[in-house]
Amino acid sequence: MTVHACGAHAADLPLVAMEITRRAPGPQDVQIEIAYCGVCHSDLHTVRSEWPGTLYPCVPGHEIVGHVSAVGGEVSGFKIGDTVGVGCLVDSCRQCASCQDGLEQYCEKGIIGTYNGPTADAPGHTLGGYSQRIVVDQRFVLQVRHPQAQLAAVAPLLCAGITTYSPLRHWKVGPGMKVGIVGIGGLGHMGIKIAHAMGAEVVAFTTSESKREAARALGADAVVNSRDAAQMRAHAGSFDFILNTVAAPHVLDAYTALLKRDATLCLVGAPASPHPSPNVMGLIFGRKAIAGSLIGGLPETQEMLDFCAKHGITADIELIAASDIDAAYERMLKGDVKYRFVIDCATLGG
Amino acid sequence: MTVHACGAHAADLPLVAMEITRRAPGPQDVQIEIAYCGVCHSDLHTVRSEWPGTLYPCVPGHEIVGHVSAVGGEVSGFKIGDTVGVGCLVDSCRQCASCQDGLEQYCEKGIIGTYNGPTADAPGHTLGGYSQRIVVDQRFVLQVRHPQAQLAAVAPLLCAGITTYSPLRHWKVGPGMKVGIVGIGGLGHMGIKIAHAMGAEVVAFTTSESKREAARALGADAVVNSRDAAQMRAHAGSFDFILNTVAAPHVLDAYTALLKRDATLCLVGAPASPHPSPNVMGLIFGRKAIAGSLIGGLPETQEMLDFCAKHGITADIELIAASDIDAAYERMLKGDVKYRFVIDCATLGG
Repeated sequence: MTVHACGAHAADLPLVAMEITRRAPGPQDVQIEIAYCGVCHSDLHTVRSEWPGTLYPCVPGHEIVGHVSAVGGEVSGFKIGDTVGVGCLVDSCRQCASCQDGLEQYCEKGIIGTYNGPTADAPGHTLGGYSQRIVVDQRFVLQVRHPQAQLAAVAPLLCAGITTYSPLRHWKVGPGMKVGIVGIGGLGHMGIKIAHAMGAEVVAFTTSESKREAARALGADAVVNSRDAAQMRAHAGSFDFILNTVAAPHVLDAYTALLKRDATLCLVGAPASPHPSPNVMGLIFGRKAIAGSLIGGLPETQEMLDFCAKHGITADIELIAASDIDAAYERMLKGDVKYRFVIDCATLGG
Repeated sequence: MTVHACGAHAADLPLVAMEITRRAPGPQDVQIEIAYCGVCHSDLHTVRSEWPGTLYPCVPGHEIVGHVSAVGGEVSGFKIGDTVGVGCLVDSCRQCASCQDGLEQYCEKGIIGTYNGPTADAPGHTLGGYSQRIVVDQRFVLQVRHPQAQLAAVAPLLCAGITTYSPLRHWKVGPGMKVGIVGIGGLGHMGIKIAHAMGAEVVAFTTSESKREAARALGADAVVNSRDAAQMRAHAGSFDFILNTVAAPHVLDAYTALLKRDATLCLVGAPASPHPSPNVMGLIFGRKAIAGSLIGGLPETQEMLDFCAKHGITADIELIAASDIDAAYERMLKGDVKYRFVIDCATLGG
């Protein structure tokens, strides 16, 4: 089947309308008519070959929501018309300890990304959600239970949502805990909403004084300007957990100093050049940890979607036409988006 | 009371015999006739002002074993003749959450070190175990249940032992776990013995091919030369916990790569100049952590001493006279000690 998509033919070319093929659904496959696809920073890094290994043509997009348009003969969990989502991965080895534990994102053989991953389908690598349809094994498809009117704003939950939900859940964030969210962007704004809904006291950290009111509106109980040493000092040794969504290199010691004994600073952004090396004494005095976390597994992604549906949580988005994607990338690079662009896939081709 | 001691009058002077005063035991105090005192790298850093804030005269020593020679009127847990130990701290605030939890080493007000800590006693800072006697509040005194013949070799348990025992215990090392110990020195050789006694599979990491047999004799199931990339790669993703005792700056990524998902690399040595900044992707892919750990609290130090007595664990030591201390420091700097010097305090003064 040929479908309209939006992608790039080379690292230095803009994204353009293109036609791609999708496989006929196999017995375990779900065919999805894509309604909306969120725009993640990873899309930009990949399509512009800022990370190694991009294969062209490249069709990005791993924050996918839509409706089931066909199912294979052995599909039991989905039927035509269901509202569904697809996130960052469309397959994994399914055999290793991580896959067996439902933590497919840590598959020991490496995940099959929703785009730029190896596949038997043409053209030999996966093509993502900036397209009209996608065919995915039912194991990697999620049920979406939000109201239809929220659907565009649900899309970013599939990456930005689960990337923040998973560590908040893993480190058992809940009532009685004081939690920091560093950075108020695509990831951070979701982190604030989710940590707040989990019942924690939420403190947002930003370098932009202008984001103070917005962070409060998202659910932050307090907002700290991380460039103000006195504001930072006032929170020394008081956090049960800090989720750091900032990928730009910065001094992590400023945050380990804010942790309680035995608490963790979790990084979900990887800097292009290294952070200054963390002060080891800052970890030793307090048995503190710096950890990392990667998106989430399929069971936890479903749990996150259901949690967000129950608590009325979606992303704050700006809906764009597919033809606006290059302009959106430029604005994203300037941080000029509150807080996630989402492509209306009805604007593809046609 | 005046007692013989060994200490320095300034950073650039050798250690010499000196007389110091000890307070008369108060109601809660235990007076200890010191039999042996281990020699820790911290002693050298402090006495030579390699760390800021050394007060002179400086009498180091925080790996103290001896016998109770007097007790205050309200002392209930100790009697004259008891074999006892004193480790790195002789007081703390006793009020904060960490003190209440028996984790006095993380006291929020800062611990009172066994030497160079603030005290009302003359000369206004604490004087350590390179001395004939010491007077310590009973709360900071430990019972030693090893045979008397092992006493000299018990001394290093009070710092090197607890510094390795505490993280191994905190991260729940036991049967069925594969544990790495990086560095085979004063700390590392204790880590190997203790992790082995806890029932774990123990792999020792060293840059010295010559330490291979010694590490096996200490209890390591395998020994890896960390300079050999092929040997390192063979253990990729296989460790439940790695305890890193090396203070010299080195590439931590080599060890995070060896951790399983959700596992921790714990640092107990603080480098004088920073380690190369850890690769954040190495933490994100596998939800791994780099943490720190500091000695241990009083309840856990007693637990460690009892564990070691039960399992027949002591340090491997070289017993020296107090007059040999400067020569011992020079050998320690060259790594020429297997694995801990211990001062025979009977050689002080007299």
